[in-house]
Amino acid sequence: MGQRSDARPKMIKAARALIRERGYHATALSDVLELSAAPRGSVYFHFPGGKTQLAVEAAKAYARDQAEMIERAAEGVNSAVELVTAYVTRARENLVKSNYLEGCTIAPLVLEGAREPDLLNAGSAAFSHIIEGLAFQFAFFGMDRADARELAEVSVSGVQGALVTARALRSPAPFDSMLAILTDRAARLGASEPSEVGDHITTEETHA
Amino acid sequence: MGQRSDARPKMIKAARALIRERGYHATALSDVLELSAAPRGSVYFHFPGGKTQLAVEAAKAYARDQAEMIERAAEGVNSAVELVTAYVTRARENLVKSNYLEGCTIAPLVLEGAREPDLLNAGSAAFSHIIEGLAFQFAFFGMDRADARELAEVSVSGVQGALVTARALRSPAPFDSMLAILTDRAARLGASEPSEVGDHITTEETHA
Repeated sequence: MGQRSDARPKMIKAARALIRERGYHATALSDVLELSAAPRGSVYFHFPGGKTQLAVEAAKAYARDQAEMIERAAEGVNSAVELVTAYVTRARENLVKSNYLEGCTIAPLVLEGAREPDLLNAGSAAFSHIIEGLAFQFAFFGMDRADARELAEVSVSGVQGALVTARALRSPAPFDSMLAILTDRAARLGASEPSEVGDHITTEETHA
Repeated sequence: MGQRSDARPKMIKAARALIRERGYHATALSDVLELSAAPRGSVYFHFPGGKTQLAVEAAKAYARDQAEMIERAAEGVNSAVELVTAYVTRARENLVKSNYLEGCTIAPLVLEGAREPDLLNAGSAAFSHIIEGLAFQFAFFGMDRADARELAEVSVSGVQGALVTARALRSPAPFDSMLAILTDRAARLGASEPSEVGDHITTEETHA
Protein backbone atom coordinates (compact mmCIF):
# COMPACT_ATOMS: atom_id res chain seq x y z
CA MET A 1 0.00 0.00 0.00
CA GLY A 2 2.81 2.37 0.96
CA GLN A 3 4.58 1.49 -2.24
CA ARG A 4 1.46 1.85 -4.27
CA SER A 5 0.61 5.25 -2.81
CA ASP A 6 3.82 6.95 -3.88
CA ALA A 7 3.94 5.31 -7.30
CA ARG A 8 1.68 7.99 -8.78
CA PRO A 9 3.78 11.09 -7.96
CA LYS A 10 6.95 9.19 -8.84
CA MET A 11 5.56 8.30 -12.23
CA ILE A 12 4.48 11.89 -12.86
CA LYS A 13 7.94 13.08 -11.88
CA ALA A 14 9.56 10.56 -14.23
CA ALA A 15 7.24 11.46 -17.12
CA ARG A 16 7.96 15.11 -16.58
CA ALA A 17 11.72 14.57 -16.67
CA LEU A 18 11.58 12.38 -19.77
CA ILE A 19 9.20 14.61 -21.74
CA ARG A 20 11.27 17.74 -21.16
CA GLU A 21 14.37 15.92 -22.36
CA ARG A 22 13.17 13.89 -25.34
CA GLY A 23 9.62 14.99 -26.07
CA TYR A 24 6.24 13.30 -25.77
CA HIS A 25 6.23 10.52 -28.35
CA ALA A 26 9.74 9.33 -27.55
CA THR A 27 8.75 8.94 -23.89
CA ALA A 28 7.70 5.31 -23.62
CA LEU A 29 5.60 4.09 -20.72
CA SER A 30 8.27 1.43 -20.14
CA ASP A 31 10.84 4.23 -19.62
CA VAL A 32 8.54 5.95 -17.14
CA LEU A 33 8.10 2.69 -15.21
CA GLU A 34 11.83 2.05 -15.21
CA LEU A 35 12.78 5.56 -14.08
CA SER A 36 10.14 5.65 -11.36
CA ALA A 37 10.73 2.02 -10.31
CA ALA A 38 6.96 1.57 -10.36
CA PRO A 39 5.34 -1.83 -10.88
CA ARG A 40 4.12 -2.47 -14.42
CA GLY A 41 0.45 -2.57 -13.47
CA SER A 42 0.67 0.98 -12.08
CA VAL A 43 0.14 2.80 -15.33
CA TYR A 44 -3.51 2.00 -15.91
CA PHE A 45 -4.24 1.73 -12.21
CA HIS A 46 -3.13 5.32 -11.56
CA PHE A 47 -3.68 6.68 -15.06
CA PRO A 48 -6.71 5.09 -16.70
CA GLY A 49 -6.19 7.50 -19.61
CA GLY A 50 -2.73 6.02 -20.18
CA LYS A 51 0.16 8.01 -21.54
CA THR A 52 -1.97 11.00 -22.47
CA GLN A 53 -3.20 11.36 -18.90
CA LEU A 54 0.30 10.93 -17.54
CA ALA A 55 1.55 13.70 -19.83
CA VAL A 56 -1.32 15.97 -18.82
CA GLU A 57 -0.44 15.44 -15.13
CA ALA A 58 3.24 16.05 -15.90
CA ALA A 59 2.44 19.38 -17.57
CA LYS A 60 0.23 20.36 -14.64
CA ALA A 61 2.94 19.54 -12.11
CA TYR A 62 5.54 21.41 -14.14
CA ALA A 63 3.33 24.50 -14.38
CA ARG A 64 2.56 24.39 -10.65
CA ASP A 65 6.27 24.28 -9.83
CA GLN A 66 6.99 27.12 -12.22
CA ALA A 67 4.26 29.22 -10.62
CA GLU A 68 5.63 28.46 -7.15
CA MET A 69 9.13 29.33 -8.28
CA ILE A 70 7.80 32.66 -9.58
CA GLU A 71 6.08 33.35 -6.27
CA ARG A 72 9.22 32.61 -4.28
CA ALA A 73 11.34 34.68 -6.66
CA ALA A 74 8.91 37.59 -6.33
CA GLU A 75 9.32 37.58 -2.56
CA GLY A 76 13.04 38.18 -2.92
CA VAL A 77 12.94 41.05 -5.42
CA ASN A 78 11.67 44.62 -5.57
CA SER A 79 10.64 45.25 -9.15
CA ALA A 80 9.27 43.73 -12.32
CA VAL A 81 12.72 44.07 -13.87
CA GLU A 82 14.23 41.95 -11.13
CA LEU A 83 11.48 39.36 -11.39
CA VAL A 84 11.89 39.03 -15.16
CA THR A 85 15.60 38.64 -14.58
CA ALA A 86 15.07 35.92 -11.99
CA TYR A 87 12.60 34.08 -14.23
CA VAL A 88 14.82 34.07 -17.32
CA THR A 89 18.00 33.37 -15.37
CA ARG A 90 16.45 30.37 -13.69
CA ALA A 91 15.53 28.80 -17.04
CA ARG A 92 18.98 29.59 -18.41
CA GLU A 93 20.77 28.02 -15.44
CA ASN A 94 18.68 24.85 -15.51
CA LEU A 95 19.36 24.36 -19.18
CA VAL A 96 23.10 24.95 -18.99
CA LYS A 97 23.45 22.82 -15.84
CA SER A 98 21.71 19.92 -17.59
CA ASN A 99 24.08 20.19 -20.55
CA TYR A 100 21.20 21.47 -22.72
CA LEU A 101 19.09 18.38 -22.08
CA GLU A 102 16.35 19.74 -19.82
CA GLY A 103 13.87 21.88 -21.70
CA CYS A 104 10.24 22.55 -20.92
CA THR A 105 7.73 19.77 -20.22
CA ILE A 106 4.85 21.70 -21.78
CA ALA A 107 6.26 22.66 -25.20
CA PRO A 108 6.54 19.09 -26.57
CA LEU A 109 2.86 18.44 -25.84
CA VAL A 110 1.98 21.46 -27.96
CA LEU A 111 4.40 20.75 -30.82
CA GLU A 112 3.57 17.04 -30.97
CA GLY A 113 -0.10 17.25 -30.03
CA ALA A 114 -1.57 19.63 -32.59
CA ARG A 115 -4.35 17.14 -33.30
CA GLU A 116 -4.70 15.75 -29.76
CA PRO A 117 -7.11 17.99 -27.85
CA ASP A 118 -6.15 16.60 -24.42
CA LEU A 119 -2.49 17.45 -24.90
CA LEU A 120 -3.25 20.83 -26.41
CA ASN A 121 -5.64 21.73 -23.61
CA ALA A 122 -3.06 20.68 -21.04
CA GLY A 123 -0.49 22.88 -22.76
CA SER A 124 -2.86 25.83 -22.84
CA ALA A 125 -3.83 25.45 -19.17
CA ALA A 126 -0.20 25.06 -18.12
CA PHE A 127 1.07 28.12 -20.00
CA SER A 128 -1.93 30.14 -18.81
CA HIS A 129 -1.17 29.23 -15.21
CA ILE A 130 2.45 30.41 -15.52
CA ILE A 131 1.44 33.59 -17.39
CA GLU A 132 -1.17 34.42 -14.76
CA GLY A 133 1.34 33.85 -11.97
CA LEU A 134 3.81 36.26 -13.55
CA ALA A 135 1.13 38.82 -14.44
CA PHE A 136 -0.13 38.85 -10.87
CA GLN A 137 3.33 39.64 -9.55
CA PHE A 138 4.00 42.31 -12.18
CA ALA A 139 0.71 44.00 -11.25
CA PHE A 140 1.77 43.87 -7.61
CA PHE A 141 4.94 45.73 -8.58
CA GLY A 142 2.77 48.56 -9.83
CA MET A 143 2.06 47.74 -13.44
CA ASP A 144 -1.43 48.15 -14.82
CA ARG A 145 -3.23 44.90 -15.56
CA ALA A 146 -2.96 44.98 -19.35
CA ASP A 147 0.76 45.78 -19.25
CA ALA A 148 1.36 43.12 -16.62
CA ARG A 149 -0.42 40.54 -18.74
CA GLU A 150 1.52 41.54 -21.85
CA LEU A 151 4.86 41.41 -20.07
CA ALA A 152 4.02 38.03 -18.54
CA GLU A 153 3.01 36.60 -21.88
CA VAL A 154 6.07 37.85 -23.68
CA SER A 155 8.33 36.63 -20.86
CA VAL A 156 6.92 33.12 -21.12
CA SER A 157 7.15 33.17 -24.92
CA GLY A 158 10.66 34.57 -24.68
CA VAL A 159 11.86 31.80 -22.39
CA GLN A 160 10.19 29.19 -24.61
CA GLY A 161 11.95 30.55 -27.67
CA ALA A 162 15.30 30.81 -25.93
CA LEU A 163 14.93 27.20 -24.79
CA VAL A 164 14.48 26.06 -28.40
CA THR A 165 17.32 28.06 -29.96
CA ALA A 166 19.74 27.67 -27.03
CA ARG A 167 19.29 23.90 -27.10
CA ALA A 168 19.93 23.85 -30.84
CA LEU A 169 22.94 26.16 -30.70
CA ARG A 170 24.19 24.70 -27.41
CA SER A 171 24.77 28.22 -26.16
CA PRO A 172 23.12 30.35 -23.48
CA ALA A 173 23.40 33.43 -25.72
CA PRO A 174 19.70 33.39 -26.74
CA PHE A 175 18.76 33.77 -23.07
CA ASP A 176 21.03 36.77 -22.68
CA SER A 177 19.68 38.64 -25.70
CA MET A 178 16.11 37.78 -24.71
CA LEU A 179 16.70 38.93 -21.14
CA ALA A 180 18.05 42.25 -22.40
CA ILE A 181 14.90 43.09 -24.37
CA LEU A 182 12.55 41.80 -21.68
CA THR A 183 14.14 43.88 -18.92
CA ASP A 184 14.11 46.89 -21.22
CA ARG A 185 10.40 46.44 -21.65
CA ALA A 186 9.80 45.79 -17.97
CA ALA A 187 11.73 48.92 -17.03
CA ARG A 188 9.66 51.09 -19.33
CA LEU A 189 6.33 49.58 -18.39
CA GLY A 190 6.82 49.19 -14.69
CA ALA A 191 6.86 51.35 -11.68
CA SER A 192 9.54 49.99 -9.37
CA GLU A 193 7.54 50.70 -6.22
CA PRO A 194 5.19 47.98 -5.01
CA SER A 195 1.56 49.06 -5.11
CA GLU A 196 -0.29 49.34 -1.83
CA VAL A 197 -2.11 46.07 -1.56
CA GLY A 198 -0.74 45.26 1.85
CA ASP A 199 1.44 42.22 2.35
CA HIS A 200 2.73 40.30 -0.56
CA ILE A 201 -0.24 38.06 -1.15
CA THR A 202 0.08 34.88 -3.13
CA THR A 203 -1.69 34.19 -6.36
CA GLU A 204 -4.70 31.92 -6.23
CA GLU A 205 -4.49 28.51 -7.81
CA THR A 206 -6.04 28.81 -11.21
CA HIS A 207 -6.99 25.72 -13.08
CA ALA A 208 -8.06 26.63 -16.55
CA MET B 1 12.76 7.86 -64.36
CA GLY B 2 10.78 11.08 -64.44
CA GLN B 3 8.71 9.86 -61.55
CA ARG B 4 11.74 8.74 -59.62
CA SER B 5 13.55 12.05 -60.09
CA ASP B 6 10.90 14.19 -58.42
CA ALA B 7 10.20 11.73 -55.61
CA ARG B 8 13.05 13.14 -53.52
CA PRO B 9 11.92 16.78 -53.34
CA LYS B 10 8.31 15.67 -52.90
CA MET B 11 9.26 13.49 -49.96
CA ILE B 12 11.26 16.30 -48.37
CA LYS B 13 8.29 18.61 -48.82
CA ALA B 14 5.96 16.06 -47.24
CA ALA B 15 8.32 15.41 -44.30
CA ARG B 16 8.64 19.13 -43.74
CA ALA B 17 4.88 19.62 -43.65
CA LEU B 18 4.29 16.67 -41.33
CA ILE B 19 7.11 17.51 -38.88
CA ARG B 20 5.99 21.10 -38.46
CA GLU B 21 2.48 19.94 -37.71
CA ARG B 22 2.96 16.89 -35.48
CA GLY B 23 6.65 16.70 -34.63
CA TYR B 24 9.45 14.31 -35.56
CA HIS B 25 8.59 11.02 -33.87
CA ALA B 26 4.92 11.12 -34.84
CA THR B 27 5.89 11.55 -38.49
CA ALA B 28 5.92 8.01 -39.85
CA LEU B 29 7.72 7.16 -43.07
CA SER B 30 4.47 5.62 -44.28
CA ASP B 31 2.78 9.03 -43.86
CA VAL B 32 5.56 10.70 -45.84
CA LEU B 33 5.16 8.16 -48.64
CA GLU B 34 1.40 8.60 -48.66
CA LEU B 35 1.49 12.40 -48.67
CA SER B 36 4.17 12.55 -51.38
CA ALA B 37 2.66 9.70 -53.40
CA ALA B 38 6.16 8.24 -53.67
CA PRO B 39 6.76 4.53 -54.22
CA ARG B 40 7.61 2.57 -51.09
CA GLY B 41 11.16 1.75 -52.18
CA SER B 42 11.97 5.47 -52.45
CA VAL B 43 12.86 6.06 -48.84
CA TYR B 44 16.11 4.16 -48.67
CA PHE B 45 16.90 4.79 -52.33
CA HIS B 46 16.84 8.57 -51.84
CA PHE B 47 17.58 8.65 -48.12
CA PRO B 48 20.02 5.89 -47.15
CA GLY B 49 20.04 7.40 -43.64
CA GLY B 50 16.28 6.80 -43.38
CA LYS B 51 13.99 9.03 -41.39
CA THR B 52 16.83 10.92 -39.72
CA GLN B 53 18.25 11.95 -43.08
CA LEU B 54 14.82 12.90 -44.36
CA ALA B 55 14.30 15.14 -41.30
CA VAL B 56 17.72 16.73 -41.74
CA GLU B 57 16.86 17.55 -45.37
CA ALA B 58 13.47 18.88 -44.32
CA ALA B 59 15.09 21.24 -41.78
CA LYS B 60 17.60 22.38 -44.39
CA ALA B 61 14.86 23.10 -46.93
CA TYR B 62 12.79 24.94 -44.33
CA ALA B 63 15.76 27.11 -43.31
CA ARG B 64 16.61 27.85 -46.93
CA ASP B 65 13.05 29.02 -47.60
CA GLN B 66 13.04 31.13 -44.46
CA ALA B 67 16.31 32.78 -45.50
CA GLU B 68 14.91 33.46 -48.98
CA MET B 69 11.75 34.90 -47.48
CA ILE B 70 13.89 37.22 -45.34
CA GLU B 71 15.87 38.33 -48.40
CA ARG B 72 12.73 39.08 -50.35
CA ALA B 73 11.16 40.88 -47.40
CA ALA B 74 14.30 42.99 -46.97
CA GLU B 75 14.05 44.18 -50.56
CA GLY B 76 10.63 45.66 -49.87
CA VAL B 77 11.42 47.52 -46.67
CA ASN B 78 13.61 50.41 -45.54
CA SER B 79 14.63 49.67 -41.99
CA ALA B 80 15.41 46.97 -39.47
CA VAL B 81 12.12 47.78 -37.71
CA GLU B 82 10.19 47.05 -40.89
CA LEU B 83 12.12 43.85 -41.51
CA VAL B 84 11.48 42.54 -37.99
CA THR B 85 7.82 43.38 -38.50
CA ALA B 86 7.71 41.48 -41.79
CA TYR B 87 9.49 38.47 -40.29
CA VAL B 88 7.22 38.17 -37.24
CA THR B 89 4.05 38.97 -39.18
CA ARG B 90 4.78 36.28 -41.72
CA ALA B 91 5.11 33.62 -39.02
CA ARG B 92 1.95 34.89 -37.32
CA GLU B 93 -0.06 34.80 -40.54
CA ASN B 94 1.08 31.31 -41.48
CA LEU B 95 0.13 29.97 -38.09
CA VAL B 96 -3.31 31.59 -37.95
CA LYS B 97 -4.07 30.64 -41.56
CA SER B 98 -3.27 26.99 -40.79
CA ASN B 99 -5.61 27.05 -37.79
CA TYR B 100 -2.58 26.79 -35.45
CA LEU B 101 -1.37 23.57 -37.05
CA GLU B 102 1.72 24.72 -38.94
CA GLY B 103 4.61 25.46 -36.63
CA CYS B 104 8.33 25.31 -37.34
CA THR B 105 10.00 22.27 -38.93
CA ILE B 106 13.23 22.80 -36.98
CA ALA B 107 11.99 23.07 -33.38
CA PRO B 108 10.69 19.48 -33.09
CA LEU B 109 14.08 18.09 -34.13
CA VAL B 110 15.67 20.01 -31.26
CA LEU B 111 13.04 19.19 -28.64
CA GLU B 112 12.81 15.52 -29.61
CA GLY B 113 16.43 14.97 -30.59
CA ALA B 114 18.40 15.99 -27.50
CA ARG B 115 20.36 12.76 -27.68
CA GLU B 116 20.45 12.43 -31.46
CA PRO B 117 23.45 14.37 -32.75
CA ASP B 118 22.30 14.34 -36.40
CA LEU B 119 18.99 16.00 -35.54
CA LEU B 120 20.59 18.44 -33.14
CA ASN B 121 23.24 19.42 -35.66
CA ALA B 122 20.57 19.92 -38.31
CA GLY B 123 18.64 22.14 -35.92
CA SER B 124 21.72 24.17 -35.09
CA ALA B 125 22.70 24.63 -38.74
CA ALA B 126 19.15 25.57 -39.71
CA PHE B 127 18.69 28.18 -36.99
CA SER B 128 22.17 29.56 -37.66
CA HIS B 129 21.34 29.97 -41.33
CA ILE B 130 18.18 31.96 -40.54
CA ILE B 131 19.93 34.05 -37.88
CA GLU B 132 22.79 34.86 -40.27
CA GLY B 133 20.33 35.83 -42.99
CA LEU B 134 18.55 38.26 -40.69
CA ALA B 135 21.79 39.62 -39.20
CA PHE B 136 23.16 40.32 -42.67
CA GLN B 137 20.08 42.38 -43.53
CA PHE B 138 20.08 44.26 -40.23
CA ALA B 139 23.74 45.17 -40.77
CA PHE B 140 22.84 46.39 -44.25
CA PHE B 141 20.27 48.68 -42.64
CA GLY B 142 23.10 50.33 -40.73
CA MET B 143 23.39 48.34 -37.54
CA ASP B 144 26.81 47.36 -36.26
CA ARG B 145 27.60 43.66 -36.55
CA ALA B 146 27.21 42.73 -32.90
CA ASP B 147 23.86 44.51 -32.60
CA ALA B 148 22.66 42.99 -35.86
CA ARG B 149 23.58 39.52 -34.66
CA GLU B 150 21.87 40.07 -31.32
CA LEU B 151 18.69 41.38 -32.91
CA ALA B 152 18.64 38.49 -35.38
CA GLU B 153 19.07 35.93 -32.64
CA VAL B 154 16.41 37.40 -30.43
CA SER B 155 14.02 37.72 -33.38
CA VAL B 156 14.40 34.04 -34.22
CA SER B 157 14.04 33.03 -30.56
CA GLY B 158 11.06 35.36 -30.23
CA VAL B 159 9.24 33.80 -33.18
CA GLN B 160 10.02 30.31 -31.88
CA GLY B 161 8.59 31.16 -28.48
CA ALA B 162 5.51 32.81 -29.94
CA LEU B 163 4.92 29.73 -32.09
CA VAL B 164 4.90 27.52 -28.98
CA THR B 165 2.66 29.68 -26.80
CA ALA B 166 0.35 30.83 -29.61
CA ARG B 167 -0.25 27.23 -30.66
CA ALA B 168 -1.03 26.28 -27.06
CA LEU B 169 -3.29 29.27 -26.41
CA ARG B 170 -4.76 29.23 -29.92
CA SER B 171 -4.32 32.97 -30.07
CA PRO B 172 -2.04 35.23 -32.09
CA ALA B 173 -1.55 37.50 -29.04
CA PRO B 174 1.95 36.15 -28.23
CA PHE B 175 3.12 37.31 -31.66
CA ASP B 176 1.77 40.79 -31.06
CA SER B 177 3.45 41.25 -27.69
CA MET B 178 6.70 39.79 -29.03
CA LEU B 179 6.58 42.04 -32.10
CA ALA B 180 6.16 45.09 -29.87
CA ILE B 181 9.32 44.41 -27.89
CA LEU B 182 11.34 43.37 -30.92
CA THR B 183 10.50 46.51 -32.90
CA ASP B 184 11.26 48.61 -29.81
CA ARG B 185 14.69 47.05 -29.68
CA ALA B 186 15.23 47.36 -33.42
CA ALA B 187 14.27 51.03 -33.34
CA ARG B 188 16.75 51.78 -30.60
CA LEU B 189 19.59 49.76 -32.11
CA GLY B 190 19.15 50.57 -35.73
CA ALA B 191 19.80 53.43 -38.01
CA SER B 192 16.96 53.55 -40.49
CA GLU B 193 19.17 54.60 -43.40
CA PRO B 194 20.75 51.82 -45.47
CA SER B 195 24.55 51.75 -45.22
CA GLU B 196 26.51 52.43 -48.40
CA VAL B 197 27.34 49.02 -49.69
CA GLY B 198 25.94 49.66 -53.14
CA ASP B 199 23.05 47.58 -54.37
CA HIS B 200 21.18 45.35 -52.06
CA ILE B 201 23.40 42.30 -52.29
CA THR B 202 22.12 38.91 -51.30
CA THR B 203 23.52 36.89 -48.47
CA GLU B 204 25.80 34.02 -49.37
CA GLU B 205 24.61 30.51 -48.81
CA THR B 206 26.05 29.41 -45.51
CA HIS B 207 26.04 25.76 -44.60
CA ALA B 208 27.16 25.32 -41.03
